[in-house]
Amino acid sequence: MKARVTVTLRNGVLDPQGQAIQHALGSLGFEGVENVRQGKVIEFDIDAASDDEARGTVKDMCEKLLANTVIETYSVEILH
Amino acid sequence: MKARVTVTLRNGVLDPQGQAIQHALGSLGFEGVENVRQGKVIEFDIDAASDDEARGTVKDMCEKLLANTVIETYSVEILH
Repeated sequence: MKARVTVTLRNGVLDPQGQAIQHALGSLGFEGVENVRQGKVIEFDIDAASDDEARGTVKDMCEKLLANTVIETYSVEILH
Repeated sequence: MKARVTVTLRNGVLDPQGQAIQHALGSLGFEGVENVRQGKVIEFDIDAASDDEARGTVKDMCEKLLANTVIETYSVEILH
């Protein structure tokens, strides 16, 4: 099955990439854009007997490698 | 309203970050993980009169700034 992990910075953590995008959008004439935040998305195929097993394994991956839980939060989706 | 843009590399475009993650997961003992691809997600608030208007504006942003459409594809979600 396919898993998608979305990792985003916690609220309150400065996001210079997001600020750069916001300024660039303003320079291009896009107005009314606020609170730009950039995160990352990681997609992969995983062998698992069930959705629940896959979800558990992927959460474990997030805690150990994919996210820095001090400054980032993550969400896990299992797709088919 | 809130917009979320997900930008991922096109199929066939080499993804060294994804490969690094795949190797690191293997080193940590996670098996059966394949085809790891890393992309980015950009979330922001946008002023617009309707969902359709917001979607059109955000697609324009993707074409002009957020995605390099030669090697990347993007998807747009409008949230509330």
